[in-house]
Formats: sequence, structure tokens, C-alpha cells
Amino acid sequence: MVAARFRCLISRVFSRRRRPCSCLYRGAMTTQVIVLNGGSSSGKSGIARCLQAILPDPWLAFGTDTLVEAVPVSTRASAAGIEFASDGEVIVGPEFRTLEAAWIAGIAATAHAGARIIVDEVFLGGAASQQRWMNALGTLQVLWVGVRCDGAVAAGREIARGDRVIGMAASQAEVVHHDVVYDLQVDTTHTEALECAPAIAACV
Amino acid sequence: MVAARFRCLISRVFSRRRRPCSCLYRGAMTTQVIVLNGGSSSGKSGIARCLQAILPDPWLAFGTDTLVEAVPVSTRASAAGIEFASDGEVIVGPEFRTLEAAWIAGIAATAHAGARIIVDEVFLGGAASQQRWMNALGTLQVLWVGVRCDGAVAAGREIARGDRVIGMAASQAEVVHHDVVYDLQVDTTHTEALECAPAIAACV
Amino acid sequence: MVAARFRCLISRVFSRRRRPCSCLYRGAMTTQVIVLNGGSSSGKSGIARCLQAILPDPWLAFGTDTLVEAVPVSTRASAAGIEFASDGEVIVGPEFRTLEAAWIAGIAATAHAGARIIVDEVFLGGAASQQRWMNALGTLQVLWVGVRCDGAVAAGREIARGDRVIGMAASQAEVVHHDVVYDLQVDTTHTEALECAPAIAACV
Amino acid sequence: MVAARFRCLISRVFSRRRRPCSCLYRGAMTTQVIVLNGGSSSGKSGIARCLQAILPDPWLAFGTDTLVEAVPVSTRASAAGIEFASDGEVIVGPEFRTLEAAWIAGIAATAHAGARIIVDEVFLGGAASQQRWMNALGTLQVLWVGVRCDGAVAAGREIARGDRVIGMAASQAEVVHHDVVYDLQVDTTHTEALECAPAIAACV
Repeated sequence: MVAARFRCLISRVFSRRRRPCSCLYRGAMTTQVIVLNGGSSSGKSGIARCLQAILPDPWLAFGTDTLVEAVPVSTRASAAGIEFASDGEVIVGPEFRTLEAAWIAGIAATAHAGARIIVDEVFLGGAASQQRWMNALGTLQVLWVGVRCDGAVAAGREIARGDRVIGMAASQAEVVHHDVVYDLQVDTTHTEALECAPAIAACV
Repeated sequence: MVAARFRCLISRVFSRRRRPCSCLYRGAMTTQVIVLNGGSSSGKSGIARCLQAILPDPWLAFGTDTLVEAVPVSTRASAAGIEFASDGEVIVGPEFRTLEAAWIAGIAATAHAGARIIVDEVFLGGAASQQRWMNALGTLQVLWVGVRCDGAVAAGREIARGDRVIGMAASQAEVVHHDVVYDLQVDTTHTEALECAPAIAACV
Repeated sequence: MVAARFRCLISRVFSRRRRPCSCLYRGAMTTQVIVLNGGSSSGKSGIARCLQAILPDPWLAFGTDTLVEAVPVSTRASAAGIEFASDGEVIVGPEFRTLEAAWIAGIAATAHAGARIIVDEVFLGGAASQQRWMNALGTLQVLWVGVRCDGAVAAGREIARGDRVIGMAASQAEVVHHDVVYDLQVDTTHTEALECAPAIAACV
Repeated sequence: MVAARFRCLISRVFSRRRRPCSCLYRGAMTTQVIVLNGGSSSGKSGIARCLQAILPDPWLAFGTDTLVEAVPVSTRASAAGIEFASDGEVIVGPEFRTLEAAWIAGIAATAHAGARIIVDEVFLGGAASQQRWMNALGTLQVLWVGVRCDGAVAAGREIARGDRVIGMAASQAEVVHHDVVYDLQVDTTHTEALECAPAIAACV
């Protein structure tokens, strides 16, 4: 356990964005929300499931996909809602943003009510997206995790999955991390989801 | 619009559970949450999608399935979590109940934050299940809708779907409505989802 | 059994397309392939599953969807392949037709090899589509079943399903039956899949 | 055939993938069927989709899953059919074997009719399973590809997927390759599907 935390500490110290490590302070605290941010096909959902499998308590996993499935079909194909262009670009309109804000408030409330939550997100707006979540999550103990994956590798996995618009992985791989501040980053380019999960779990 | 409300009034007056119709009082109010309660394969999800299609504003649709997919895989097959027995019985344990309570609190918060929500639920505990939702939804304007379907017909649809444990439809058809109080009831035994939706929409 | 065949006979006699009923001749024969033809959202897949559930022997169910999933992703969105236009129109190109011809030959061979097969099809070309199947199925004993559904009702179910391009149901409801010859027709407009299945099973 | 095996040997002797195989000996021949054999979660489907994406002609992809979905629901849970035990063991009964034999005959016929086919298979019986396919495919030009993956890694991916019975990956990782003869083997333990695909495509 000590070793695990140490490893986590190390990876934080050498993290590009040297945010003051909160591992030490977290001793008595309990992480309430884990936010996994990464581009499409970077492996977030797989890591979320592995985390659910290895963490001792039951954690709920929600994600952008949960919201996209919850909106009306018409909202999924309108300029005001969310559009998935044929080249992989995702354009988010004001209507979707409004629904998303309410949904994020709901996630925060679920956590305040006692459920531990893993959020699987795609910060299309980079730091601005993170700020929205920070504002909503407020005083909750959050572990911010960047899920990196080389764009070309993610694009290959997108082809292998066969259920995503081709182009999303490549276009999102870098932009979603723009100016985002993390407690921890994992990289799935050469590391399996089940190997990334313990590094994250060690910081919870 | 007047006609629509009148139709709604009529259908309420002739509703089996003659709860005083709240349509008139609702004049200045706006429904914030529509709760659709019914057994498995009674057609709730289809009605939810039709409501999303015909209501002028965008409504988010969440349901029991959203929660079941969010819990850890291990919780979906444990006595403490939620078990789907091979005869169609669904047994809910304390761990699942705790997560569910937090999830319901989140739905309430999402509605308080401005999103309109359709909840697709299965009140396995009848009135007790409704009470949990009532407590959580508090002062929100809720439209309680019973989605009835003859047990044998629902069982037939369960076979036709091919993706549910056989037996759920029959075992839930009646019990989920036990002592539940509704503003409106629809019956999908002989009525299509798209025909049920306007009756509900007229009361929103 | 006699009663069942009689019922089948009756339904054939009153069938719109009064093809000479082959039920009587079929006495010693065994149906090897059941072809269900109908527009999108007419309920073919549900009937296929119900048939599998009530027929004493195990039947394999394949359909247009099986083929669409088997072709390359690129073929699903090209003029040469198969295109699903945003208005619900489905345009089939020469590349898809070639693959389809081979696939149909495979279905015939599977039946010749002893497996009983239910095919769930959409005869976009009406009689010409049926002719392709007839040529391929050759001497196999085939039961041709028309699955009718009022276009408006099918369109409503399309909205309720939420996973199909809106417009397919309405545009296909009539055209797929154009000049097609059936042994039996069922209509799901007011009849459940599980009720249609026995009428078909009685003719097998 | 000898040539193909020789090439395979060459490609084995010279590390994993020194350069794309030149297929000198196959000149006049054209591969008609690619059989990918590997345990659950070894990455076969992903490789199949990548092959479809990079091969110049359209290839149809079918697999064990296609057959499992085609059999009656009751066959998926009976001793005579196919059973997925809770520990990941898959038990195949005589009824399923009979249907499978007919299905394999259909795949062969589809290839004889001109469609190129990628088969994604799990040889639970090792060499005996391959023999069944060899008998059915007869004179067709087949490329036999072993899809290897370290059992522990495959088990991790099984957890990350979240849609398979836990235990299948580990129990199948080795046994499916028992005495099976390949033209080519790929290993997804450290290699992406999109990287494995060109090595296979080069031998087609």
C-alpha cells in the first residue's frame, strides 16, 4: 500500500503539470469523485470498469455517453444540441450545454448523497470544461485523472471498435488535455486498462 | 391546447384511481419530472422516447437501466446488489438500495438545476418505492404516470425482444402498481406508445 | 394439429394474394426456410424470436441486419454499398448486391445442410427481390410470409425504438410487398408478435 | 498450400514482422477465406474490422458470435445447446454442433459464391475444431491465422470490456491453439489490432 502510494506520488511529481500533490493531505480524506478525462477511444470506459472491479467499495460509473443517450434523438443531430460530423468533429450547441450543466449538478448531488462516482469525460473545451466541473463539484474530494493515448494508436482502436465515427479519436487526442490540471495521468498507448487502474486506485 | 388539457382532464376523471385532478392547479406550474412506472416490457422506454419526440422542450430520459449499467458488474450479481434470477425475479439488496438512493437524489438535483426529466422506473416495492421518490423529489412538480400492460401481453413482448430474462414481465405486471398513486394511467396492451404519449404530454 | 392446419388454410384462403394453398401438399414435406418479409419496424425480428420460442426444433434466425453488420463499415456508407439517407431512404449499390447474392447462396447452403432457417428480410425491390431469393433457394421448401403493418403505426414504433433512422418505416411499409407472392400474411398493426407466430408455425 | 505454409514459416523465422510478406508463391491464387482463431478477448473482432478497413476489396466478417445470436434463446442456455457457465467455461452440446456444422457449410458456400470472408472463431476443440472447418472449406483458399494473447492480458481486457462472463479469456487463451496449424500468427499482447492487420493482409 505504501509502495503503491509512493508510486503514485512519483508519477505525480514527474507529471507535466506539477500540481501540488494532494496525496499526503488526502490521508484522512476520501475521494468522492474520480474524473477520467481523455479523447475518444483513449480507454476511459475500460479503466472505469477496471476501477470498479478493483476498488473495495462499489463505485458508480457515468460518462458523456450516459448524457448523450439521455437527450432526445433530435438533440443528437441539431446545431443547438450535439452533432457528430462525418469527419469525427463533435460540435456542442447551447441546448446541449444547458442540459449538461444540469446533469453535472446531478452528478455532484449524487456524490454528496454518498455514492462514489467515476466520471468518464471528454473535455472538448480543455480547461474551460474542467472549470465547469470544478464549479459544480465544489467541495467534493475529486481525483482528476488524465487518460492519455497517442492519437494514432487511439485512431487505430477506433477502427477496431467499429462503432464510432472515424476521426473522433485523432481530433480529440490532444485538445481535450489543453491546460487541464491533473492529480495523475495515465497513458494507455502501451499500458493496459487493468494496469492503469491500480495506479489510480492507489490515489483514492 | 385547451382541448388537449380537456382530454387530459377526461382521462383523469375516468382513471381507476380517481385522484383529484391537478391539471387545473397546474396552470401556472410546469411539470419538471415525469415518472413512468410499469413492469418490465410494459413499454415505458418507448413512451419516454415518444414523449421526447413530441414535447416542445428537450427532456432528459433516465431509468432503472441507467443505474443498473452504472453499478459495478459484481453488484449486478450479488445478494447485496441486484440479482436477476433465472425465473425473472429481481432481488434488490442493501448495497444497491444505497446507491439507488444517491442516484435518485441526483435526479432530483438535475431537475432543480433546470433540466426536465422523464424517469422510467419499476416500483418493485409498489407504494414504498413511490414514497422514496416522493421524498427525494420534494417540491418538484411531478407527473406520476402508471404504465399498465396486461401481464400475458407483456410476457409475449419479452419473448419478442429477446434481451430480457423470461419471467420478469409476468412477475412485475401487477405488483409494481400496488398502492401507487397516479395522476394519469396509460395502458399499452392495445395502445401504441406514440398514442399514449400525447395523453401524457397534454398533462405536462 | 389438424385444427392448426385448418386455421392456416383459412387464413390463406382469405389472404389477399390467393396463391393456391400448398398446405395440403406440404403434408409429407417439411418447411426448411421461413422468409419473413416486411418493412422496417413492422415486427419481423420479434416474430422470428417468437417462432424460435414456439417451434419444437431449433431454428436459426438471420436477417438483412446480419448482412449489414458483416460488411465493412465503409460499405455501409458508400454509393456502391448501402446508404441510409437521413430521410429514411435506403439505397443499395452494386457492391452490396454482389455481397448479398453470395450471402443468400450461403443461407441456401445452410438450409441444404440441415439447419432450419428463419430469414428476416426487407424486399426493397418487391417481386424482384423475392425472385432473387427464389432462384437461390431453389428446391428448398420455403414458407413465404408477408409481415404487414400500417405505415403510420410502424413509424410510431420507429420513434419508440429510438435506434433507427426516422422515415424508414413509412417509406418501406408498402413498397416491400409490391407484387410479392405469399403463402401467408400476418398484420402486426393490431396483433402481437406472439400471436402472429402460431399462425405461421401452423403452416410449417 | 505448401507455398503458403512456407511463407508462414519465413515470416515466423524472421521475427514478428520484419516487412510485409511478398506473397510471391501465391501469385495466381487469391485467398478466399481468412480464419482468425483465438480465445475470447484476444482481439479477433478488432483485427477483422481493421482487415476490412485496409483490404482493397470488401470482405464479409462473420464469427462465432453471429451463430450464437442466430440460435434460439433457449439453445443458448441448455446442455444440448451452448452454455456459458458463470466461471467462464463454455460447454457446447450436440444440438449446437449440428447447427454449427450447417452454418459452416453456409460460410463455405458464401465464399464459393464469390464473397471474401473473414471468420472470427474460437476453436474450443483445438485441432478437431480446425478439422471441421478444413473439411467444410474444402478446396477454398484459406489463410489460417492464430490470434495469440497472453492469458492474463486477455483477462484484463475482459474486465475492461464488461460484457463477457469473467473467466472465458483465461480459460481459452491456450487451449484454442492446441495442435492447430497456422499460416501466420499474430500476438495482440503488445501489438495493436491495426498493426496486426497489415501482416495478415500481406499474405492475402
